[in-house]
Amino acid sequence: MNVLLYTPRADEAPDWIASLERALPGAGVRLWSPGDTADADYAVLWRPPAELLAGRTSLRAIFALGAGVDALLALERHAPGTLPAGVPLVRLEDAGMAEQMAEYAVHAALRYLRRFDEYELAQRERTGAAPWHALEPHPRESFHIGVLGLGMLGAHVAKTLASLGLSVRGYSRGKKTLEGVATFAGESALPAFLDGLKLVINLLPSTPDTDGILNRDLFDALAHGAYLVNLARGAHLVEADLMAALDSGRLAAATLDVFAQEPLSAEHPFWRMPRVTITPHISALTLREPAVRQIARKIEALARGEAIGGIVDLHRGY
Amino acid sequence: MNVLLYTPRADEAPDWIASLERALPGAGVRLWSPGDTADADYAVLWRPPAELLAGRTSLRAIFALGAGVDALLALERHAPGTLPAGVPLVRLEDAGMAEQMAEYAVHAALRYLRRFDEYELAQRERTGAAPWHALEPHPRESFHIGVLGLGMLGAHVAKTLASLGLSVRGYSRGKKTLEGVATFAGESALPAFLDGLKLVINLLPSTPDTDGILNRDLFDALAHGAYLVNLARGAHLVEADLMAALDSGRLAAATLDVFAQEPLSAEHPFWRMPRVTITPHISALTLREPAVRQIARKIEALARGEAIGGIVDLHRGY
Repeated sequence: MNVLLYTPRADEAPDWIASLERALPGAGVRLWSPGDTADADYAVLWRPPAELLAGRTSLRAIFALGAGVDALLALERHAPGTLPAGVPLVRLEDAGMAEQMAEYAVHAALRYLRRFDEYELAQRERTGAAPWHALEPHPRESFHIGVLGLGMLGAHVAKTLASLGLSVRGYSRGKKTLEGVATFAGESALPAFLDGLKLVINLLPSTPDTDGILNRDLFDALAHGAYLVNLARGAHLVEADLMAALDSGRLAAATLDVFAQEPLSAEHPFWRMPRVTITPHISALTLREPAVRQIARKIEALARGEAIGGIVDLHRGY
Repeated sequence: MNVLLYTPRADEAPDWIASLERALPGAGVRLWSPGDTADADYAVLWRPPAELLAGRTSLRAIFALGAGVDALLALERHAPGTLPAGVPLVRLEDAGMAEQMAEYAVHAALRYLRRFDEYELAQRERTGAAPWHALEPHPRESFHIGVLGLGMLGAHVAKTLASLGLSVRGYSRGKKTLEGVATFAGESALPAFLDGLKLVINLLPSTPDTDGILNRDLFDALAHGAYLVNLARGAHLVEADLMAALDSGRLAAATLDVFAQEPLSAEHPFWRMPRVTITPHISALTLREPAVRQIARKIEALARGEAIGGIVDLHRGY
């Protein structure tokens, strides 16, 4: 069996190859380089150049090293036929990402619920008189948290927040049932989902239907002074609308892990906005060992002729 | 029934009186003022002057509006006889505080586990080149968290951290059993409890036995680059030892909600130390309604001749 690997982080490639070889004894794993058109049974990759995929219809599957495959699908949209016809595209399912997402989301939710962001500003911007005073706490019972997207990641985030006794709603395209979470399905339910939310956490897949969903209309439907946390894709957010909403006080603050352009340009105003917290797309890092274990199990299942999870519906986009 | 109220926050006294009157129909509730030596059945108070308590042996109980009664006991130590002999001193049990403590502790633990404190510094201190890079995550499985003190607050904090799948140990004077938490009891078990901890969260009562426990010896027993969170009392911490440990890198960072002197002096170096996060004693605010409900229930129980919880062992100190 031959496995073709590609990652934009060339320095990490040797570790990926070693892990894959350990998990798939007997397989030949090679790092793709320009000009390599030799046969392969499987591709394991992240953000590949279109050239890698050209004509590779003999692949049995393409495994993406992430949960969101919007960048691969964008290649296909811009140049139809880039994805080899008939080859299943498989995205990572969890592999340690849900737990990391929940950590990130719980931290951000508690930070805003308890106003730790404002205490930090008070400590940092202290000028002369000590800012030693308690801020009026947000009432816990009316601090409604909404999770946009209830896939494997969003569902785990919503359940974890609910397990802490917080008020949690969840929104997805199709109806889901989650313990302790009030769920809303479909566009017609979006207004009811958003009404009075104090915090929105975005974990939607990025598709032509969802891109730009974090916009002025959505912000206007929230409680006044609400908070935004974007953990999905930069394409979901209309940046100018966010800046205007922060300026007007419609939104109180935002935490962003993803951006329209990554790395975020050094000149971007987000770096300097005291009410915007940014992290460099680290909310859920792909962990090599669990990711490789999952892919190896799926390759074995395919070899036995069994069905596997995580196959992307190219039309739906996730 | 006459109830004597005292709180150092005079502006909050009318709300306390109204709540107590609602919870104890028929009771006369009055705010103590200097010179008031008239009879009372119960005292409900926080940080009272010694004069209020002098000779009040006819009180049936004194209810403190907090979980830690170290300030009241210090009055007694400095001037024995300040606390009226034979009158039970009752501290608040939970009343919404455990939940708040858990929120604070979970936020601080996730902040350090995921290195959000360092990402914040990177965003804030950005000079020229964008600091767009992922920090090596702390491995979750070796990020051992130790909770010092397993009273109502510490036990809830430890259980909540464990419910998130984190590695949690708990230390108390007497043996406790908590689901998902490795517990250690008594001074002889302290070294085993501390060994290799990456984060210490202090929720001990402040007594002559525990004051100063957060010192150089304790810091030296932790994992290198460990974190400290003090949610109990400033008296627990030897401030000079903390500053030296942060200077040397023995400790990576600290979050402090309590201080030897409160309010923290405007000149205190903690305000300006980038690796020290301070909040103004807000980890668990006394919430008026649940506190009043609890006190009213206990007064009714005493009237029926029943035992109540929360009576302070003056010798033990909590």
